[in-house]
Formats: sequence, C-alpha cells, structure tokens
Amino acid sequence: MIRFAAVGLSHNHIYNQVDMLLREGGALVSFWGREPERVARFAERYPQAVLARGVDEILDDPAIQMVVGADTPAERAPFGVRAMRAGKDVSMAKPGFVSLDQLAEVRRAHADTGRRYIVHFGERVESAVTIRALDLVRAGAVGRVVHTSGFGPHRLLGHIPREPWTFDAAQYGGILNDLASHQIDQFLFFTGSESAEIVSAHAGNMRFAAQFPAFQDYGDITIRAASAAGYIRVDWLTPDGLDTWGDVRLFVLGTDGYLELRKNIDLAGRPGKDHLFLVNHEGTRYIDCADTPITYGARLVADTLNRTETAITQAHVFTACELALKAQAMAVSITP
Amino acid sequence: MIRFAAVGLSHNHIYNQVDMLLREGGALVSFWGREPERVARFAERYPQAVLARGVDEILDDPAIQMVVGADTPAERAPFGVRAMRAGKDVSMAKPGFVSLDQLAEVRRAHADTGRRYIVHFGERVESAVTIRALDLVRAGAVGRVVHTSGFGPHRLLGHIPREPWTFDAAQYGGILNDLASHQIDQFLFFTGSESAEIVSAHAGNMRFAAQFPAFQDYGDITIRAASAAGYIRVDWLTPDGLDTWGDVRLFVLGTDGYLELRKNIDLAGRPGKDHLFLVNHEGTRYIDCADTPITYGARLVADTLNRTETAITQAHVFTACELALKAQAMAVSITP
Repeated sequence: MIRFAAVGLSHNHIYNQVDMLLREGGALVSFWGREPERVARFAERYPQAVLARGVDEILDDPAIQMVVGADTPAERAPFGVRAMRAGKDVSMAKPGFVSLDQLAEVRRAHADTGRRYIVHFGERVESAVTIRALDLVRAGAVGRVVHTSGFGPHRLLGHIPREPWTFDAAQYGGILNDLASHQIDQFLFFTGSESAEIVSAHAGNMRFAAQFPAFQDYGDITIRAASAAGYIRVDWLTPDGLDTWGDVRLFVLGTDGYLELRKNIDLAGRPGKDHLFLVNHEGTRYIDCADTPITYGARLVADTLNRTETAITQAHVFTACELALKAQAMAVSITP
Repeated sequence: MIRFAAVGLSHNHIYNQVDMLLREGGALVSFWGREPERVARFAERYPQAVLARGVDEILDDPAIQMVVGADTPAERAPFGVRAMRAGKDVSMAKPGFVSLDQLAEVRRAHADTGRRYIVHFGERVESAVTIRALDLVRAGAVGRVVHTSGFGPHRLLGHIPREPWTFDAAQYGGILNDLASHQIDQFLFFTGSESAEIVSAHAGNMRFAAQFPAFQDYGDITIRAASAAGYIRVDWLTPDGLDTWGDVRLFVLGTDGYLELRKNIDLAGRPGKDHLFLVNHEGTRYIDCADTPITYGARLVADTLNRTETAITQAHVFTACELALKAQAMAVSITP
C-alpha cells in the first residue's frame, strides 16, 4: 500500500490523480492548497485526509511516499524539487514545468536523489481508446508508424471553475507547454521514439484577445523523429454547441493501415466516448474499448514501491516536457 | 457553347475534365494522347471526337477555344505555353507544373497573351461537401477561420491503371507538388488568403522503397498566412481494407466553431461520400450535401467565353502551385 498526500489544488486535475491512487488502494494521508474554497471542497470529498498547516508538515512526514499536485503551474517544479529532496516521489498535473530552468532543476534533483517527478499524461494513461490503440500499434496492426496527428481542443469557460492564472500565458508557460505536452507524449509513444525535434510552432490569441489579452487560445507544433513526423494542434476554441469539453482526436498513420481515435465524442454519431477506428489491409473496423483495462495507476504504485519504471520512465517525462517547452519558446505568433 | 480538345490522356483525370465540359454543353472536337491503349479507350468513350495526328493539328484549329489535359506531368506546362501562344485557354490536371522554371514560363505566356492556364482542383471544385463547407464559412458559421488541416491519402495500386511515371518522383515533381496542391488550394480558399508561406515540409518513401525506389509515398506541409495556420498531410498509403481510394478529410477551425469534411467515406458509419459536420455555438449538425450545386464547370465555360474570372482566378492558380513547388523543394526526407 502507498501513502500519499495532495499538494496544490488549483486545478481540478488534482482529483484525477487522487482518485486514481485511491482506486489502487492508496491511503490519502494529508493535503494542502492555496485557495480556501478549493480546500473546503477537497476536505469534504476526502474526509479521511488531514489538512496540513503548510507543505513542510507534509514533507516532514516520513510515512508519505508520494505527493500528487496541481498547484499554480509555476509552483509545481520548485515544490517538486523540495519533495524529491525530502525523499518523496512526485506526480504532477501538466504542465509540470513553466521554464527550461525549472526542468533543469528537477533533472538535477532526480539525479541527486533517485526520486521521480512524473507528469500525469491523462490523455494517454487514463484513456481506454488510447491504450487500446497503442496495443494495436505494438501488435503490428498498421505496420510501422509513419505519422501522428493530434488535435487537443478545449472549452475555456462555463463548465469548470478556473483560477485567474488560467488566463495568463506567462503563468502557465503558454498553450503549447500546457496542452500540447499530451500530444508530444503520444507522438513519442506511438512512433516508438525516444527523442524528437521540434520543426516549427505557432501560438496565438485568436478569439479571446479582448477579454483575456495575456491568454493564448491557439497553438500548433510540427515535430519529427528519426523516420516519422507528427503534427499537433491545440486550442481553447471549443464552441458551446459541442456536447463535451473538446473533440480530441488522434490519427495514427502506418505503412499498412491507420487508426483514428475520437477520444471524447463521435460527432453526430455513436454515444459516449472512446471511439476507435482501425483500417488496414484486412478491412475497416470500429472497436469498442469499454473492456480495455487501465493499468497505469497500479503500475505507478508498483513502480513507487519497487523502484521500477513500468508505468512511464522518468526519461520520457523529461523528454516530452522539454520538447513542449522548446516548442513554446520558438512559437511564432499568428495573433491577428 | 465552348469547343474544346483533350491533349494528353496519361492520367484518368482527363475524364473528369472532359465530362465536366460536356455536361456544360461543350463540344469535344478532337484529342491526342501518347499511350495507344489510352487513345483507344478515349476514342471508344467519345466517338464524336477526332483523333488528331499530333498536337499541332489541335493548336492550328482556330475553332478550339480551350484545351484540357492530363499528359505526363513534365509535358503539361510546355504544352500549355504553346497552347496559350496559339490563343487557347488551358485547364490541366494537377500537377500543372513540375518545376518553378515551368511556372515562370507559363506566367510569362499568360502575361503576353492573356490566355489562362488553370489547374483543375477537383478536390474542391467538384466536391459537394467542400463547396457547401466553403459557403458555410463565408456565411460566418464558424467565425473567422484560424486553421485548416487537410489529409489527402491515396491508394497506389489495384484500382486504376498507372503509367510508369507515376512511380518516379522526378517525373511528377514529388508528392507535395502533385497531391498537396489540392490542400494548399483549400487552405487559401478557406482562410481567405491571397498568399501564404511554407513553414516546413517533409517527404519520404515509407512503404514502397523496395518496390519503387524513386517514389515518394508520404509528405506533409506546415503553412502560414497572415493570421491563420494550416497543415497538410498526403500519402499513398491507403490500405486495401478501405472501401474507397482514400479517406480524404478537411478540418476547418474557426474562432466560433469548426467543420469536419469526410469527403469520400464516413469510416464504419454512414454510406456514400460528402459527409459534413458543423459544430458551433448553436449545436452540432450533420449536413447532407446531396443538393449542393456544383457550378464550377459552368462558370469556367462562362469565364472562357466572357474573359471573366468567376470560377477561379489565374493568380490563385499560380500562387497555389508555386507554394506546392516551394514546399517540395524544401522538403526534408524522412525516408528510413
């Protein structure tokens, strides 16, 4: 059994991670957050957890093995370094970093301590359709993967409460750093690449410039590995008339077939989420992913207890985040 | 009524153009082709047309106002220049050019003669779903267009006969010059741009390198206009199990909604082609495009007779083809 704490409740993504570890038998010992209403809501949802007077109380508790977090983005990595140096593993909501300097600090802490700083790539590790698609690719269902196209649209307003930092690109490190890290993670996984190069990137404030002048609501990345290319488009432009927060897609093109993942919705089509389409030389299939096991949480717990890397490797996390930070740094503005 | 000839039958695309002009009341006067079997097939299909002894016979016939063509790609522009200088308008299958030098020659012939050299962008002008989508965009259904993503996959073998030049990138100018000109055309139209910049490009021979070493079966382009970006992915990797030659898609992202065009097939879904999905603040709609009028042919004929530019402008054709040629020239290889 793993004993863990939650530090930083500024984004609702904290719940994904807490619930995942609870499902795997983890014990939520304590928590801390900076927004009183979010603290109250968390305390009500998890009455078993003790509200710490500060993060030191959590770092000083030798029984806590892991800390999960979704603090304001700029605070995540500095806290992570402290947690690692206090002997704890860390699993952070994305973005795990807002600068390459933060990434360098965390790399150093990892090298010094052997503790991990994992970023929670929920669009893959908690996504049944993505897990199933990756299994199919690894089984050779589409031949060698040549290309991936990932679309990550999001709804900005009206469905969840958002803190002020959400609207200031400087505070979350920009849209590519924030949203596109998911798609970079998937490009690396689906193409089987350990490294890649950012070829080009754009960012812009296309719809919300008057309302939120410091925001970025659009971004794209062209990425290349040894023998594969990829494209990523992310945005905060989901219109009100869509029945979910975003029509997230992934297209995986192989030498002998392709996959389309409609992660959240099948437009004017089948109900629910996790829609997978496979086309190869044998035919065209719609694949139901309801039975696909989601094992990431169990493996992350086992990795923490056994010092293995079966869920995700530290090197992969650093590579994906570094590419997102680099893409952001080189993004050309297309703001009108 | 327009009187026209067909010069160059090396690709089946000649039939699209001939049939289009016949539907609009045109008279097919004469034709010429270099492959005896293709000539025989054409003669059988259009018994009203006279087989010319050579292209000069067609160029010397003052009654012919327009020539349509689908010769081997490298021969198209040089013939087009001769035809324009002989006083005829030209409509060519894509690619209309295989080099920037050819483009410069045709530009010169146009400036000198006022005759047109149109490239037939069938993926837009003959596509009901694309025409309907463009109408919706122009009516403001998705706000200002921020981005387009165009996928142009094709099947290489088994469904139509292909001449040897098909397998030699030098002869058709490369995959981006050939296939991606359609998607560049659509990027310009949907974003309302008169010009654009190629940001990056890739090409590769990912599946057919052993069988056709001089082929390119994969390509992509990242493109940017003043306040919009676009991505284009083309390939010859359509697997045998797809019920059509290619799952051609276009995604149009606006500030207030988006469109998805499934041009040829709705995977494991609705039958037929021309599937249009519109999502905006009002809701999510599937739009039947069966009744969408296709007026390009009629307008092209009228333009030829009246010296107007209602179907397509010469400047647009040159811009789209120049961008395709430039993308091809700068493409980085990702061949394994």
